[in-house]
Amino acid sequence: MNPSASALLTDLYELTMAQAYLEQEMTGPAVFELFVRKLPANRNFLVAAGLEQVLNYLAQLQVTQEELAWLDQSRRFSSGLLHYLETLRFTGDVEAMAEGTIFFPHEPILRIIAPLPQAQLVESRVMNLLNFQTMVASKAARSVLVAGGKPLIDFGLRRAHGAEAGLLAARASYLSGFAGTATVLAGRMYGIPLYGTMAHSFVQAHEEESLSFEHFAQAQPDNVILLIDTYDTEAAARKVVALVPELRAKGISVKGVRLDSGDLADHARKVRRILDEGGLSHAQILASGNLDEHRLRDLVQNDAPIDSFAVGTAMTTSSDAPSLDCAYKLQEYAGRPTRKRSEGKVTWPGRKQVYRYYTQDGQLNHDIVTTDRDHRPGEPLLQPVMREGRLLELSPDLGKVRRHAATQLGQLPESLRTLEIGPAYDVRISPDLQNLAQAVDRSL
Amino acid sequence: MNPSASALLTDLYELTMAQAYLEQEMTGPAVFELFVRKLPANRNFLVAAGLEQVLNYLAQLQVTQEELAWLDQSRRFSSGLLHYLETLRFTGDVEAMAEGTIFFPHEPILRIIAPLPQAQLVESRVMNLLNFQTMVASKAARSVLVAGGKPLIDFGLRRAHGAEAGLLAARASYLSGFAGTATVLAGRMYGIPLYGTMAHSFVQAHEEESLSFEHFAQAQPDNVILLIDTYDTEAAARKVVALVPELRAKGISVKGVRLDSGDLADHARKVRRILDEGGLSHAQILASGNLDEHRLRDLVQNDAPIDSFAVGTAMTTSSDAPSLDCAYKLQEYAGRPTRKRSEGKVTWPGRKQVYRYYTQDGQLNHDIVTTDRDHRPGEPLLQPVMREGRLLELSPDLGKVRRHAATQLGQLPESLRTLEIGPAYDVRISPDLQNLAQAVDRSL
Repeated sequence: MNPSASALLTDLYELTMAQAYLEQEMTGPAVFELFVRKLPANRNFLVAAGLEQVLNYLAQLQVTQEELAWLDQSRRFSSGLLHYLETLRFTGDVEAMAEGTIFFPHEPILRIIAPLPQAQLVESRVMNLLNFQTMVASKAARSVLVAGGKPLIDFGLRRAHGAEAGLLAARASYLSGFAGTATVLAGRMYGIPLYGTMAHSFVQAHEEESLSFEHFAQAQPDNVILLIDTYDTEAAARKVVALVPELRAKGISVKGVRLDSGDLADHARKVRRILDEGGLSHAQILASGNLDEHRLRDLVQNDAPIDSFAVGTAMTTSSDAPSLDCAYKLQEYAGRPTRKRSEGKVTWPGRKQVYRYYTQDGQLNHDIVTTDRDHRPGEPLLQPVMREGRLLELSPDLGKVRRHAATQLGQLPESLRTLEIGPAYDVRISPDLQNLAQAVDRSL
Repeated sequence: MNPSASALLTDLYELTMAQAYLEQEMTGPAVFELFVRKLPANRNFLVAAGLEQVLNYLAQLQVTQEELAWLDQSRRFSSGLLHYLETLRFTGDVEAMAEGTIFFPHEPILRIIAPLPQAQLVESRVMNLLNFQTMVASKAARSVLVAGGKPLIDFGLRRAHGAEAGLLAARASYLSGFAGTATVLAGRMYGIPLYGTMAHSFVQAHEEESLSFEHFAQAQPDNVILLIDTYDTEAAARKVVALVPELRAKGISVKGVRLDSGDLADHARKVRRILDEGGLSHAQILASGNLDEHRLRDLVQNDAPIDSFAVGTAMTTSSDAPSLDCAYKLQEYAGRPTRKRSEGKVTWPGRKQVYRYYTQDGQLNHDIVTTDRDHRPGEPLLQPVMREGRLLELSPDLGKVRRHAATQLGQLPESLRTLEIGPAYDVRISPDLQNLAQAVDRSL
């Protein structure tokens, strides 16, 4: 069993509500939209990600015979619901922002229009997929913006929250501009370039550090990146230099070294000098070790001679904002716009579109959120991607998504590119949407 | 394919190192230990969790033909490594702390003794599993400690980091004393009790709030918990009361209501009065909505009339500490103790045991971390669980693990039970271990 594909990966209330909807024959078209209520404290913008996984989930949704038998045994559900689940397929429409698109609070990034029980059942997993990848893509983009073009690599699997988090964090960070990942299965599943060096255990398993370098170089002659901080960083750099003649005789060149602890800028300067003086000026320095966008920016701004960076835990877990305040809300049922009015959680009703406007030099200027009937000039960000349960076209390959994200990041105004929080981006709620909200309020 | 069971769910360097080990015939017994370097800022203790998943992973480890073909096509690896992977099985020994055991920094919770390439290859996934579940179990325990015995329910799937995070967070929080989860598949996979109510969308899909309550009660007559904050909480509570005669005529009783927004204590008091005056004094109040252990404590200490709590995002993501500073380090290779000496990341070498000592009234007093040859009176926390790749016994069922955790939490001294950070628990490094570390340093 692959738990990540199971229709039972949902909250119990989705099933109990579906049962009630079926009993009342409330199977008319429901419109749910997914959006973020407000930005995390340390974010100027978000990057939409996870749509491909959502569409795959919807396209493959079904309940297996084993699952049906288990649901039946639980004695919680009516035969009507079980019968419905037996032939369940997703038959709805989906409109969405392309993955890699920059967006802001109150802007829907996904709309599902489907018979009410279907649209309800998929809520938990749709949120689970979009919340996580969007969160990671948005966090990773901050590192990309301050890295000055230096390659960033995802090293985060070990502290990601389980298997799927490790895999999807590799995908989401690559999408936002990372150069690759260390996670082998992410390479296989998503075609992401793989990077890797060696661990401290490799050095420790040898009685002599130099011998460990030699053995690694022989085993990976095309990828000799040596980890030099197990005992004494500069001493190890000198050992690398001392090995060069022997390796050269075997036709092996040292591609680089990795620093993983201590004052990375200071070590990088000292190691750079040792490598340069030892004839290894072509050898690159890769830095890792609890890096995040702030430490990255400091290292880049201080001209630390580091050529690439591995970023792990902080990015994979979005450590300063490990969730988004995202919501998947019913905006219309059977043609009637609806609105949640809970304190602090009021939503805008109805089907919406987001129009984006640019400055003359091509930077984001403002967005307008309006009803989908209020056609405007400008770039509509939500586009149809699924009709009656069928994909309109194959999801764009990840390379194309990554180029789209790069274009989007290039269009960010300076005030949103910094790590510090600038004035909020101008998102306007149209008069038409405000009127609709008032009309809904009057009807309640 | 189930990605969470794949042997390729590992970091690239585990494979490149394995190749080098094989080339050098470094296949002697390696001893790796997993421990946490230091506690997160807001934790007084940690709760070990995830061992069952680690043992299942090790017991089932193998590389499929498709994976071998893909590795071969990547042209990164030698035929020697591919040949080795073709018949790879985990043949090592594992010693570990029982799940649910409280532990502290520098105390290994897991030791793997296996041929070096095997013990290396499993590093990434073993860390991934133990880091996450231990982090969640430790976070959840804080809520359990302040909840005053009131039931806590996991509502976190939608903002968990992917599928496995949702499932394993349900498991880890139940292990630490939560009463159950909303995640249906976690109920199926781990036998965790399921809880669920209704969503705002259910109310919104009806033109009348009262009608939504009536329909839900008819569909779930044994589980009538009504969400009353969609529009106006107290008004909805009065609608619930007004429905009682009609429901009673149908033999249905209202089990409770759920509050999800606003000032929960204030709403709970008002709603309690409305329910009591309406003859619904048996009806319970469930509260949810961005709860964490601090808000829980405030509600409990202020005697808010809330009977149970649903906790979601903060627990599932361990929002104030979304990772642990855990490490999986080579402590011995081929009989030689080893030690990493990187700045700020120095480890204690060799195979270790943790002995725990109690006060006269049965509370934790101090632990001693020592070498495994330094036998002492007291309770050794690491016990054999796998020999030569075979489980010594089936993992204890989750109910037993949960009772063990409850016993452990009951043994916490008052200074560690509070949400605030008290003086650190007394963990002593034995003279024998200190001597070993010095001997290793001299040999370097």
